[in-house]
Amino acid sequence: MSGRVGFIGLGIMGSRMAANLRRAGFELTVFNRTRSTAEEWGLEHGARVASSPAEVGAECDAVITMLVDGDQVEGVLVGTGSVEVPGPPVRESAREGLLCIDMSTIAPSHTRAIAEGLDERGARLVDAPVTGSAPRAEEGTLTIMAGGAPEDYERARPVLAAMGELLVHVGPLGQGQMVKLINNAVAAVNAATVAQALLVGRRTGVDLDALERVMAAGSGGSAMLQLKAPAMRSHDYTTLFKLEHMLKDVRLCLEEGQAAGVPFPFAALAREILTAGRGRGLGDLDFAALIEVLEADSGVRL
Amino acid sequence: MSGRVGFIGLGIMGSRMAANLRRAGFELTVFNRTRSTAEEWGLEHGARVASSPAEVGAECDAVITMLVDGDQVEGVLVGTGSVEVPGPPVRESAREGLLCIDMSTIAPSHTRAIAEGLDERGARLVDAPVTGSAPRAEEGTLTIMAGGAPEDYERARPVLAAMGELLVHVGPLGQGQMVKLINNAVAAVNAATVAQALLVGRRTGVDLDALERVMAAGSGGSAMLQLKAPAMRSHDYTTLFKLEHMLKDVRLCLEEGQAAGVPFPFAALAREILTAGRGRGLGDLDFAALIEVLEADSGVRL
Repeated sequence: MSGRVGFIGLGIMGSRMAANLRRAGFELTVFNRTRSTAEEWGLEHGARVASSPAEVGAECDAVITMLVDGDQVEGVLVGTGSVEVPGPPVRESAREGLLCIDMSTIAPSHTRAIAEGLDERGARLVDAPVTGSAPRAEEGTLTIMAGGAPEDYERARPVLAAMGELLVHVGPLGQGQMVKLINNAVAAVNAATVAQALLVGRRTGVDLDALERVMAAGSGGSAMLQLKAPAMRSHDYTTLFKLEHMLKDVRLCLEEGQAAGVPFPFAALAREILTAGRGRGLGDLDFAALIEVLEADSGVRL
Repeated sequence: MSGRVGFIGLGIMGSRMAANLRRAGFELTVFNRTRSTAEEWGLEHGARVASSPAEVGAECDAVITMLVDGDQVEGVLVGTGSVEVPGPPVRESAREGLLCIDMSTIAPSHTRAIAEGLDERGARLVDAPVTGSAPRAEEGTLTIMAGGAPEDYERARPVLAAMGELLVHVGPLGQGQMVKLINNAVAAVNAATVAQALLVGRRTGVDLDALERVMAAGSGGSAMLQLKAPAMRSHDYTTLFKLEHMLKDVRLCLEEGQAAGVPFPFAALAREILTAGRGRGLGDLDFAALIEVLEADSGVRL
């Protein structure tokens, strides 16, 4: 892949990922729903700004989407669905061989439906969601799990390599999403478990520094312990990953599991806590804010 | 501490821990409920074999216990409780300043009751449970979390250092136990969550190698993912830590939390799964065998 790359969605993650594509030497055409964001970004980083998704598709060999949910991705790529997008979708200008790479986190079934819409024009889709928050997006060290036909993944790989450190082709279309959803459901459970453990520790008089140290060194250790225990203890919810987005991912994971006939009770319990968090108006904060729900429930303050 | 050390309980963990004390140059007097086990061990490692816990107490400056539960520890150290021990307990021969170090995992409240029984003779107690299974007991790289008076902990430290890599004095008597119970409850939840995640992955057609790799590199990572996912996937339940013992620890953690008025719903869910595992006759296997319960529930085989 050496041609021009399109990037749609310059949010917290997208803007950092696109900057790494520029750094790696890719010529970019960008589009953002709020046009002023795209204008500013284009000026700063040296990228063309398109006035519609279709214009991005017309100018580029590959189009990346990094959006909030499946409805937005569907709107931008094929123009159907419930979300209104400024200007015609990528499909309008799509031609044989156009490669779309969706790096958003959406339902695998939605990914497959969007691929059908693109297929009518001969365009291809790879799903390539990421893990790692804003700092790793900035460093270009994201983990990227991709689903799609092997030849499509091979074409996407040089582009993905500019944004990620670990690239894993996990299987056919939609499987990147499924792996991402399962990962995030596990992360949500592990984080909520750390929160409950800290509260039990606090109330039984345990030294929480010692507890963290012992758990980190042994069988209780987890990425979430390392990343979220300090945030919970200091009640610092600076957003790395919004509670609302985590809730969305856990819910999608549960829906896919249920459709396949497999229960995931730990994730269901995490969903209840996150849902209560959103009800308390914590949706825009980092999901470490789930500690607030559990503190209120238990009457214990960390 | 340079005097003779007593060691009571030469099971999977205890025999390996005592061997490291010998390697570090400590003279040992050992006792085991099944006397032949102690005789063999004493012959192989060069240790005196006592015919009762009281005899161990009489010969040593410090006495370590590594037993299955609080009733056994109480029986061996103070002679009360429901368990019959061959010969009189350590308290019979205890004198001012005898240091008892209980490395078993028992309820913190039980630890404090036993300490009162020893206190009548001027003997001191430190609780020093461990994390890390047989291999780390063998290498002398256990994590040891100790509770007790600072001066008692200081006396215990050289002995503990021969068995562990990370020693943490976590607070007053009983707090070593509390930290251990919380750690194990978190480990049980994380392991059961990995199991449910693998089953959802299998049923939705995900490549489980890729799933493991992605989770290990990111927010879904945990010690339990690393240690137990391979065992679950290969259905290899070679015992590193018995399901029955994990169930005991999770239950104790819940009881302490409940007594303090703090719920721990994730641990309660793990307890249900482990209890069902014991009901299926898996109690003596490694707790990775909990996957069997979840496979039966979901009708999915890894």
